Amino acid sequence: MPDVRFFNRAGPFPLGEIAALVGAEPLGADDDATPIHDIAALDCAEASDISVFTDTRYLDVLLPTRAGAVIISRKLAHHARGESRLIFVANPRLAYAQVGLLFYPRPGLEPGIDPNARVHSTASIGAGSKIDAGAVIGRGAEIGERCHVAFNAVLGDGVRLGDECRIGANTNISHAIIGRRVEIETGVTIGSQGFGFVPSAKGLTRMLQLGRVIIEDDVQIGANCAIDRGATGDTVIGAGSVLDNLVQIAHNVRLGRHCVICAQVGIAGSTVVGDGVMIGGQSGVSDHLCIGTGAHIAGKSGVIRDVEPSSVVGGFPAVAIKDWHRQTVAISRISKKTN
Amino acid sequence: MPDVRFFNRAGPFPLGEIAALVGAEPLGADDDATPIHDIAALDCAEASDISVFTDTRYLDVLLPTRAGAVIISRKLAHHARGESRLIFVANPRLAYAQVGLLFYPRPGLEPGIDPNARVHSTASIGAGSKIDAGAVIGRGAEIGERCHVAFNAVLGDGVRLGDECRIGANTNISHAIIGRRVEIETGVTIGSQGFGFVPSAKGLTRMLQLGRVIIEDDVQIGANCAIDRGATGDTVIGAGSVLDNLVQIAHNVRLGRHCVICAQVGIAGSTVVGDGVMIGGQSGVSDHLCIGTGAHIAGKSGVIRDVEPSSVVGGFPAVAIKDWHRQTVAISRISKKTN
Amino acid sequence: MPDVRFFNRAGPFPLGEIAALVGAEPLGADDDATPIHDIAALDCAEASDISVFTDTRYLDVLLPTRAGAVIISRKLAHHARGESRLIFVANPRLAYAQVGLLFYPRPGLEPGIDPNARVHSTASIGAGSKIDAGAVIGRGAEIGERCHVAFNAVLGDGVRLGDECRIGANTNISHAIIGRRVEIETGVTIGSQGFGFVPSAKGLTRMLQLGRVIIEDDVQIGANCAIDRGATGDTVIGAGSVLDNLVQIAHNVRLGRHCVICAQVGIAGSTVVGDGVMIGGQSGVSDHLCIGTGAHIAGKSGVIRDVEPSSVVGGFPAVAIKDWHRQTVAISRISKKTN
Repeated sequence: MPDVRFFNRAGPFPLGEIAALVGAEPLGADDDATPIHDIAALDCAEASDISVFTDTRYLDVLLPTRAGAVIISRKLAHHARGESRLIFVANPRLAYAQVGLLFYPRPGLEPGIDPNARVHSTASIGAGSKIDAGAVIGRGAEIGERCHVAFNAVLGDGVRLGDECRIGANTNISHAIIGRRVEIETGVTIGSQGFGFVPSAKGLTRMLQLGRVIIEDDVQIGANCAIDRGATGDTVIGAGSVLDNLVQIAHNVRLGRHCVICAQVGIAGSTVVGDGVMIGGQSGVSDHLCIGTGAHIAGKSGVIRDVEPSSVVGGFPAVAIKDWHRQTVAISRISKKTN
Repeated sequence: MPDVRFFNRAGPFPLGEIAALVGAEPLGADDDATPIHDIAALDCAEASDISVFTDTRYLDVLLPTRAGAVIISRKLAHHARGESRLIFVANPRLAYAQVGLLFYPRPGLEPGIDPNARVHSTASIGAGSKIDAGAVIGRGAEIGERCHVAFNAVLGDGVRLGDECRIGANTNISHAIIGRRVEIETGVTIGSQGFGFVPSAKGLTRMLQLGRVIIEDDVQIGANCAIDRGATGDTVIGAGSVLDNLVQIAHNVRLGRHCVICAQVGIAGSTVVGDGVMIGGQSGVSDHLCIGTGAHIAGKSGVIRDVEPSSVVGGFPAVAIKDWHRQTVAISRISKKTN
Repeated sequence: MPDVRFFNRAGPFPLGEIAALVGAEPLGADDDATPIHDIAALDCAEASDISVFTDTRYLDVLLPTRAGAVIISRKLAHHARGESRLIFVANPRLAYAQVGLLFYPRPGLEPGIDPNARVHSTASIGAGSKIDAGAVIGRGAEIGERCHVAFNAVLGDGVRLGDECRIGANTNISHAIIGRRVEIETGVTIGSQGFGFVPSAKGLTRMLQLGRVIIEDDVQIGANCAIDRGATGDTVIGAGSVLDNLVQIAHNVRLGRHCVICAQVGIAGSTVVGDGVMIGGQSGVSDHLCIGTGAHIAGKSGVIRDVEPSSVVGGFPAVAIKDWHRQTVAISRISKKTN
């Protein structure tokens, strides 16, 4: 059970209401009325809990579960044993996420601008938004409705935030136009100067960085990431994309929609990443490349050439994932022969 | 000599008191009374300083040292020349660290809650603790005794901190239960949402992250690290473990006791790391793995399989370190033949 | 055209004034008087704009440009077509950077210490400096003239800042002596404890970290970097060096002058890096190494041995770049044969 110090549970809810919420096959009237008090993993669940089963590797915890109800797909249903009511859906993980939000809804905002927030007189704050103490909203900035800007976050002059955004504490945003329902964790930097220099006799002269960061709707950005603004033109994070922690996005990168970028990835300047691309943790992508739509890049890869749409690559330099597996096998064999 | 702008020196101390502190073999009465004013490296030390010798590679600086006293092991003593009094101990580096703390004790705290700190009315602050201006202590949070929460650090609702913790400026902590004598540097994020999503027709739905971060006693966490809370259940950092800067710890990682995690390491979700594991800088460890007790992972490794206890691995994909060395030799040879 | 929310344009300027500024060959009197209103990329430029051409790969945008003037080198001039006036200089990129600063000068500072800044009574703030709300200036700290310390930045006791420095919001600096014209982005940590421990029966005892960070003139440091102070002696960042985002510099590293350190690089303890070294993104350099003057280290390299001056290395373990390319070719071939 989640720690009540940190999480407020709603409910209980009748099982029928839950089933309807997730679009499950109808239950009998008796089952409809069963009160459910919480969500829980199969091995911890009690008779008042609802759980989920998605993976036959964990049959040893499904079989003995005491969960009152289990969300499951039709094709795995024959594994179930015991008393649990089965809730049949096409996508059990998605259904379980929806049920989770029912029991643990996002805490409501108590709107208001803290007297110790520093909101510029020319900034506008939408209805229902909450600006915490120590937060800064710059000249001419526009904050949408029902946004939360947490403690000590600094939004520079002219920054625009769509409705229902959440900006974490101690996060810094400048030169950015941000869509709706964007969530940014703590300690993030967005809009910093890109890393472009001209060598000269006197040393390195920084190229002016006159672009912006455009973050489209429904983007989520992890803790301590850094996203530079464009040099000319914009750095873009496409709608629905998600970034894990400590990710580096250089100037003029154009990330597509619904991309998944794992922790500590770095994408160098002006690279274009198509929609639905997944990049594993600690991978690096060189500058001025084109990563095709739907490509997958395995963790810790070093991508130094364009990647075809829908392909799967890995290694350094990254190659087709099958070739990379062949390479690691070959190296392993040869090292045994030659030593 | 350390810069007095930044470090306050105590002392002088009689050499006999120092010898007793580190459990050295007894000195003669004359030596006991010798006043020592500072610690210093062998090549910089003066007659009023104490130094340490631990490595025969640096004999060229031991031989001519002017240090008044040198901490040394019995078995290296025959290298010593000149006037320095020798302080015999079993572990000279440890003894030197102890002497360092004698001369440069941690500055005391001036307890108190700054009027510009934002402490929720339901939070409790232990005796002797110091909360700096701009720091935030959330609803129901409990801060132990003699803690220091530095400027602009944000501790969320319900966070618990044991006695004698030090939280750096601009650090963010939520959903966390923290033990005693834990030190966290500046710019850190602890308790952020884990990176788990369910794909659906509408895009990516984030799995609720209903767990916590448990940090046991005596942990030290470097600057700008990111540690996610568990999805269900907890992310755990075991007692006495130390993390360098910019480390990423994903949701539900369980790190053992006395682990050493170097800079820019990333550990993916649900991986279990045994006690006493060392992970070199920039290494990555995949999710759901088991790293055995006492294992060593060389720097920049990519670990994609379980690691046996007490083994030493390296490379990407990581293999036994000897095999990795063989591989690099083999690749080097073959590249010469085939080109 | 840069977004007026974020960038204030100066001008217009007569073309002759621009040509004189960049040391171009003289123009005719008619051209001298032509008013120029903005800078723009070749493909976006209008007749009132000035642009630059540097790379024959982009001939397709040079030929049809409508730019009123184009900065170009003599040897590329024969590619130009159409109406644009050509501005001949030896280093077009540098000239364009200079023109950029003419149209988009750095915004002036409105000097003053915000009443919500926390400046210690013993600290000194030079004339013309601006200290934002929430910023902290510690005991005995010295801030030069015309500096900007942004919101919520924390400068510890004794920190010294030369003239014309810019410290980003939510950045933390301690134990540091910083030169003139140093620019540090947001979310950075400078002066944290180095990562040195002595194992003992009781666990890990941290070695005292009694050194400093010395940052010389004209250094630029990217977002969310971490730079530890020396253990004894100093960590040094040489004059004119530039660091991208999320870089890790360990204790006692000595970085030379005019180095270029790309994003997510890590340099381990006590390594000495010569002047003019370039290190590509995500590379790691082991501790106690010597990287010769002018060396180039390719991205994602793992350097575990000294690097000769002016050499170019890559791979992991890093070797001469030609050898690394041979290795990747050889591995690719062998994996095809043996599978």
